[in-house]
Amino acid sequence: MKIRTLIAMYACLLSIFIAYAYYYQQDISRIRSLQDEISSLHGKPDEKYVMVTFQSGMDYWKRCLKGFEDAAESLNVSVEYRGATQYDVNEQVTVLEQVIARKPAGIAISAINPTALTKTINKAVEEGIPVVLFDSNASGSKAFSFLGTNNYSAGVTAAHEMAKLLKSEGKVAVITSPHQLNHQERTRGFVETIYQKYPRMQVVAVKNGKGDALASKQAAMEVLNDYPDVQGIFATEANGGVGMAEAVAELNKKYVKLISFDTEKQTLDLVKEGAIAATLAQGTWNMGYWSLQFLFHLHHHLTSPSRSGDALLPAYVDTGITVVTRDNVDHFYAK
Amino acid sequence: MKIRTLIAMYACLLSIFIAYAYYYQQDISRIRSLQDEISSLHGKPDEKYVMVTFQSGMDYWKRCLKGFEDAAESLNVSVEYRGATQYDVNEQVTVLEQVIARKPAGIAISAINPTALTKTINKAVEEGIPVVLFDSNASGSKAFSFLGTNNYSAGVTAAHEMAKLLKSEGKVAVITSPHQLNHQERTRGFVETIYQKYPRMQVVAVKNGKGDALASKQAAMEVLNDYPDVQGIFATEANGGVGMAEAVAELNKKYVKLISFDTEKQTLDLVKEGAIAATLAQGTWNMGYWSLQFLFHLHHHLTSPSRSGDALLPAYVDTGITVVTRDNVDHFYAK
Repeated sequence: MKIRTLIAMYACLLSIFIAYAYYYQQDISRIRSLQDEISSLHGKPDEKYVMVTFQSGMDYWKRCLKGFEDAAESLNVSVEYRGATQYDVNEQVTVLEQVIARKPAGIAISAINPTALTKTINKAVEEGIPVVLFDSNASGSKAFSFLGTNNYSAGVTAAHEMAKLLKSEGKVAVITSPHQLNHQERTRGFVETIYQKYPRMQVVAVKNGKGDALASKQAAMEVLNDYPDVQGIFATEANGGVGMAEAVAELNKKYVKLISFDTEKQTLDLVKEGAIAATLAQGTWNMGYWSLQFLFHLHHHLTSPSRSGDALLPAYVDTGITVVTRDNVDHFYAK
Repeated sequence: MKIRTLIAMYACLLSIFIAYAYYYQQDISRIRSLQDEISSLHGKPDEKYVMVTFQSGMDYWKRCLKGFEDAAESLNVSVEYRGATQYDVNEQVTVLEQVIARKPAGIAISAINPTALTKTINKAVEEGIPVVLFDSNASGSKAFSFLGTNNYSAGVTAAHEMAKLLKSEGKVAVITSPHQLNHQERTRGFVETIYQKYPRMQVVAVKNGKGDALASKQAAMEVLNDYPDVQGIFATEANGGVGMAEAVAELNKKYVKLISFDTEKQTLDLVKEGAIAATLAQGTWNMGYWSLQFLFHLHHHLTSPSRSGDALLPAYVDTGITVVTRDNVDHFYAK
């Protein structure tokens, strides 16, 4: 090998090396600018947010959790789903205490009743853990926000939908659970809207369906017998919807238009086969999605910054209502 | 130079090169993982969102815009502020039309009145431009959400604050603009809460201050002369607050507790010097911040994904109220 060849190779190698180093430096600055671009809306995978419910196996929570998970994916953080398996106040308090003990980055909780969890929620907030409530509020607590359905508005929506089905004319009735605040509000929204906006419609009866399909069937039978010209019934919860559909079938009055609530499988099946004309879906995905967004903003101190005592987060988020009919029912089956 | 030396240098250079290439490859995979980490909550700087107001020079909008800008920074997008300079319906319609013509990524608008902009807003939505309303709603429009104060709740907060100041005892009055819905609701929240929760308090008068300092001063003078034992007055808007403070000073009744609304400089000065005991700050930063978040989610199709007809966004966000007193007033001066 000649020296000249070696020197040529040497020069060649050196220039490749220089070229390589040049591109490498360019990539280094690309890395830097990428790092700058990673926004403040970007957490760490070990940052864990917990959703706490009751009757945790219910279908209803699935879309809430999906929203929570979708937000976690966008924000690059982790989530965990916990809950009382039963409709049991003490069990939910215990679960919440266990969750708090592990100091998560934030907790979204649906309260089994408006007062029982307040003390435990406040303890979490005092320990510096962000807490928001979704679906069912505990309004006296120190939680930072509540995200859920405006039940009065849901009743208003039901009234407009009923008017559409009946061409703004005819007698209607309500089957509800008169001892629960959310059902009172759904009923009030419905009754007041019919009264104020539809002069040729009339609410002739409001019956107690006791949150039970059999009792609701019985209540619907009474309505249909007492007022044979009733044209529509609104049930403020899912079992009431199933019961009234049975009553209408049994009395062979399938022309009576039925509006139910929520999207349990049985309700969706009845919508699909035309026995129930419409049901009202709550904005469960929004509850979960924006709960996690709010918790993330609290954990990372990204809320209204420069004012002490300013409202850190919106006090209340009305997550909306969607009317489900035969046309769009397929989208609502749990996936 | 000996061949051996050249070969040694050659070997040395080669090993540096290999080492370099090795680290480079590691950095390449770092770049890849960084790219993966850049979340979906990350826009492009040429993605422009526009805020549209009326009387666009008002201090009131500054914190709304700050929230809008803060969200834009987090999401790596651009914002622009536009508005009718006057309180002029036609001017706001024209501004909005100009904004739509440039096809921005989204528009947040505070509507000068509930109906005049509906047609133009709907045009934007039909052209595929995401629109949300903040502060002042146009509820009949196709905008995707409304973010603003719950005025009834604001009145409730004022009532509780007044009760705190008066130790739950004594006669009080309201100065309001009885022909505007938001002021009606503030008044109703105040009056109903005093009536329901504070049996030793009484609302003795509700007067029309006409949104004007002089008329409000006159109204406050009448109240204080007709009911010499009035202990507190709530004004539902800023000019009313200024007027009643003048009346109280002129009649030398500085023991009367005054609660005003909003955070104009003049109001804050009166809070600072003790003439007004408290004023209610609206969650303006939250209006701007969450408006931009919502628009971004619409533009990038990040809202509730798999359901056609599902509520894309929460229907309503109550952006909250903060009580401003001497203790925290310094944080509320516009910066």
